[in-house]
Amino acid sequence: MKKILITGGTGFVASHLVEELYNRGERDLHVTSYRDDGQFVKKFVDPNNIHQINLTDYQATQDLIREIQPDEIYHLASLANVGDSFEKRKFILEMNTSLQLNLLEAIKEYAPESKMLHVSTALMYEASSEAINEKSQLGPDNPYALSKLIQDMMVYTFVKSEQLNIVRVRPFNHIGERQTLGFVVADLAAAIAKVEKGQQDFISVGNLESVRDFSDVKDIVSAYILLMKKGQSGEVYNVGSGASHSIKEILDLLISMANKEIKVLVDPSKIRPVDLPYLVCDNEKIVNLGYAPEHELKETLERILNYWRENI
Amino acid sequence: MKKILITGGTGFVASHLVEELYNRGERDLHVTSYRDDGQFVKKFVDPNNIHQINLTDYQATQDLIREIQPDEIYHLASLANVGDSFEKRKFILEMNTSLQLNLLEAIKEYAPESKMLHVSTALMYEASSEAINEKSQLGPDNPYALSKLIQDMMVYTFVKSEQLNIVRVRPFNHIGERQTLGFVVADLAAAIAKVEKGQQDFISVGNLESVRDFSDVKDIVSAYILLMKKGQSGEVYNVGSGASHSIKEILDLLISMANKEIKVLVDPSKIRPVDLPYLVCDNEKIVNLGYAPEHELKETLERILNYWRENI
Repeated sequence: MKKILITGGTGFVASHLVEELYNRGERDLHVTSYRDDGQFVKKFVDPNNIHQINLTDYQATQDLIREIQPDEIYHLASLANVGDSFEKRKFILEMNTSLQLNLLEAIKEYAPESKMLHVSTALMYEASSEAINEKSQLGPDNPYALSKLIQDMMVYTFVKSEQLNIVRVRPFNHIGERQTLGFVVADLAAAIAKVEKGQQDFISVGNLESVRDFSDVKDIVSAYILLMKKGQSGEVYNVGSGASHSIKEILDLLISMANKEIKVLVDPSKIRPVDLPYLVCDNEKIVNLGYAPEHELKETLERILNYWRENI
Repeated sequence: MKKILITGGTGFVASHLVEELYNRGERDLHVTSYRDDGQFVKKFVDPNNIHQINLTDYQATQDLIREIQPDEIYHLASLANVGDSFEKRKFILEMNTSLQLNLLEAIKEYAPESKMLHVSTALMYEASSEAINEKSQLGPDNPYALSKLIQDMMVYTFVKSEQLNIVRVRPFNHIGERQTLGFVVADLAAAIAKVEKGQQDFISVGNLESVRDFSDVKDIVSAYILLMKKGQSGEVYNVGSGASHSIKEILDLLISMANKEIKVLVDPSKIRPVDLPYLVCDNEKIVNLGYAPEHELKETLERILNYWRENI
C-alpha cells in the first residue's frame, strides 16, 4: 500500500482528491492542514494522520516528512490571495516561498525517492486571446500568481539540482462543492440559492464578459492522479477542459436551474482592476497522456447549486 | 539634466555603466552601494551621491527614493551566488526578493513616473542547444538564477498592476576589466598573468567544452543605455553578441597573447555538477532597436589580460 501525503489536505480541491483516492482503494492517506481540523476529509483519513502543521515552520516540516516518509505527495498547500497592501504582498510572497523551500528541503533530506505533484495555477501565464499551452509566456499580474510561479520554478530548480522527482501542474479554473465564496461560480450559485430562499431579492454580479475554462473539480483530481502516475519529473502539465465559457453563460445556466425568477444587477465595484478577459487551456499535452474530462458543465453546476441550497 | 540612479552602483558592470553615462554628458548621477565605498565610480560621481545603503532595508529604500526621486533607474543591485546550503539558498531567495519588493514599492510611492531598467540574467532560461530568444522556456537550475527570475517576474507584476514603467533585461555572459575572480574569463586571464610573473607554474581549468555568448561589458552597458531610451515597459530584451565561443577558444586566444609559455592542467573539481553546455543569445529583438556590438572578442581579451597584469 502506497503512503500518500496531501498537503493543504483539507481545502476544497484536496477534499475531493482524498475522497477519490479513497474510492480507488488507497487507505494510507495522510494530510496536512493549517487552518482547520480536517472536517472535509475525516470520513477518509485516520484522525492520527491529519497533521495540523504550518509548512512555513521549517522544523515542523522536517519532522513531518521524516516521520511519514511518503511515497507520493500531492502538494496543494499555499496561502491564497490575501489582499493588496505592501504588507500583504510581502506576506504572501514570503509565506508561499518559505513553505515551498521547507517542503522541498525536507523531501530532499527524508524522502528523496518520493514522487511529488506540485499544484500551481494557470494564473501565472501572461494574458492571451489564444488557448494557453505549457510553452506560453509567463506573466503573473498579481502577487498571488507571482508566488505560485515562484513555487513552480523552485520545483524546477530542485529537480535539476537535487534530482527530485516532481511533476508541475498548472490547473485552470475549477469548480465544485465546497469551493469557498469569493470564487465567481460559488458566489453566483450561493446568491441564487439565497434568492430562492427569500434571503435576498436579486443577485449582484461583476464582469460577465470574462471567458474561462471551467473544469469540474472531480475531473481535476482525476487529472492529478493520472499525472502522479504518468507525469514526467520537471515537466509542466496544464490541466483544463479545453472548452471556454463566459461568466454570462454560467450565470444563464444557473438561472435556468433556479426555482424562482432571478433578478441580476451589475455592480461596477465587483469588476477587478486587472481582470483577464480570456483564460483558456490548451490541454493537448495531458490529453496525450490519456486525460478525458467526464463531467458536463451542466451537471457540475447542478451539483454546486444543490450544495449551496443545503449550505446557506 | 536627467537624475539617474544606479543601484548596485559600485560593482563590475555598474562601474562601466557609470563611466559611459558620464562620457555621454550625464552629471546628475547617483549610485547605491552596499559593500564598498564606491572606489570604481568616485571619478564620476559626487561623493554625496554615493549612498551606502542596503536595499533589503525597507525604510532606507523608501527614504532613498523619496530623497532622490530619480528620472531613470538602472537597477543592478542583487546578491550574487553565495553557496549551496539550505541557509544560503534561503538567504539569497529572501534577500533578492526583499530588495526587489522594497525598491518597487518605493518607486510606486515616490517615483511612479520614473523609467527603470531591471537587469536580470539569461541563467533563468532552460538549457537549450539553440540560441535563446525572449520567448524561450524559463528554467533556473540554481537558487541564484531562481532569485533573478523572481525579481524579473515581480517587475512584470508591478508593471501590470501598478503601471510602473520598467524594462526587463536578460544579459548573457559579459566580460571586462574589474570583473571579479570566480568568473571564468577573469580566472583564466588572472592565472595567465600570474604565470607570466612567475607566481605560478601552470593554470588549472574546469570544463573547456562549454559554449557561451561573451559580450564586452562596454557593449552591454551601451545596450542598457539604448534600452533605457527605446525599451518598452514590461517587455523583455535579451542582451548578447549572438556569437558563440567555447571556453577552449577563449583560453587559446588568451594563451596566444601571453608573453610566456602557458601549461594547462584540467582540474575535475572545477567542473560544476550542473553546467550548461551551451548558452547563446538570439539578440534579434534588441538588434531591431539598433543595437550593434562594437568590441571584438580579441580586443576585449587583451584589455582583460592587461587589467590582470596590473592588478595581481
